Amino acid sequence: MQFNEAINWRYAAKKMNGQPVPQAKIDAILEAIRLSASSAGLQPYEVVVIADPALKAKIYEQSCPQPQIQEGSHLLVFASQLSVSEEDIRTYMERIARTRNIPVDSLNGFSDSIKNGLLSMPPEIIKNWASRQAYIALGFGLVAAAVEEVDSCAMEGFNSVALDELLGLKEKNLGSVVLLTLGYRDEEKDFLAGAAKVRKDRAELFTELVA
Amino acid sequence: MQFNEAINWRYAAKKMNGQPVPQAKIDAILEAIRLSASSAGLQPYEVVVIADPALKAKIYEQSCPQPQIQEGSHLLVFASQLSVSEEDIRTYMERIARTRNIPVDSLNGFSDSIKNGLLSMPPEIIKNWASRQAYIALGFGLVAAAVEEVDSCAMEGFNSVALDELLGLKEKNLGSVVLLTLGYRDEEKDFLAGAAKVRKDRAELFTELVA
Repeated sequence: MQFNEAINWRYAAKKMNGQPVPQAKIDAILEAIRLSASSAGLQPYEVVVIADPALKAKIYEQSCPQPQIQEGSHLLVFASQLSVSEEDIRTYMERIARTRNIPVDSLNGFSDSIKNGLLSMPPEIIKNWASRQAYIALGFGLVAAAVEEVDSCAMEGFNSVALDELLGLKEKNLGSVVLLTLGYRDEEKDFLAGAAKVRKDRAELFTELVA
Repeated sequence: MQFNEAINWRYAAKKMNGQPVPQAKIDAILEAIRLSASSAGLQPYEVVVIADPALKAKIYEQSCPQPQIQEGSHLLVFASQLSVSEEDIRTYMERIARTRNIPVDSLNGFSDSIKNGLLSMPPEIIKNWASRQAYIALGFGLVAAAVEEVDSCAMEGFNSVALDELLGLKEKNLGSVVLLTLGYRDEEKDFLAGAAKVRKDRAELFTELVA
């Protein structure tokens, strides 16, 4: 579907019909998430991809009793880093050097500027910064799903402590911040499927300013 | 440009060439931002749109000395709410009722669930929640710009206190969280314009889990 049509078509599906999303469409959505922008390009998050009904049932029971968890085909858990280390930054510099075929030392200035910006920040600030980056990727994923004509619902209302424990995220220096279910809307059972989109109008959302 | 091509084409332009972006393209980008998903649909943010060179010069001087501020055609300031009030929620319910032509009282259950979720939250939590919603809209804006073949650069490294004062945001219960410059890349001066995109590979970013 074309981008403009897709962003009008999409909505937060409250009921899904259990139909599986083909792997090629999942791959396209994950690729958009992978290509998302992030601060300094650091991508301080990972995404857990869950299609297994047994694990989705556990998540439904222990962390998020919303029907889409089980009625959706795939569940993506966006998990952002709890901290950023010098090693993370070194790994990133090595990735840049490898990808662009340049000496890693040529990135010392860039590396230092990231270190100066991040390594001294309080843990709570870093956590919030990292989760905001994951939300940009969520935006890319929401749009990509619609372009692929896959329904989705982003969800924040879940027990992140229980989910982090179930998925072993804390040991990986990660914490779940937002969920994205992917599947197909249940047109009959979801009263929102045909409802008009509600948004602030342009005058409410945008202000043009001059000096 | 097709979505898939667009997300590969885009990058964070470090130098722009001053060429103006046509209003129709700006409108398309703003419309995508307006249609972004947000938690419960509340859109707890506004976006300030600045094309005026004099105001961009002030922002460059007082808050963000990055060349794209002035070399870009338009600067979008994403400003999220500092708090959410009962009146905000009532305004939202009235918007839903108006758009869908339903009695506002039929939304009491939805309204109560939002109030229960948000009104008791500490101010710092609300602020972080609201800014994360603005980052989803940033994601929509970044993709829309690329689809319109407009270059962009999202920026976090600015003096938000100075910017909030300059734009009078605090009085409107808003705080700037991220900037998006829109314009056209300067292919000659931006050494990143032709550089390979650096991203975590799929195995680094995604983990498939089963029970």
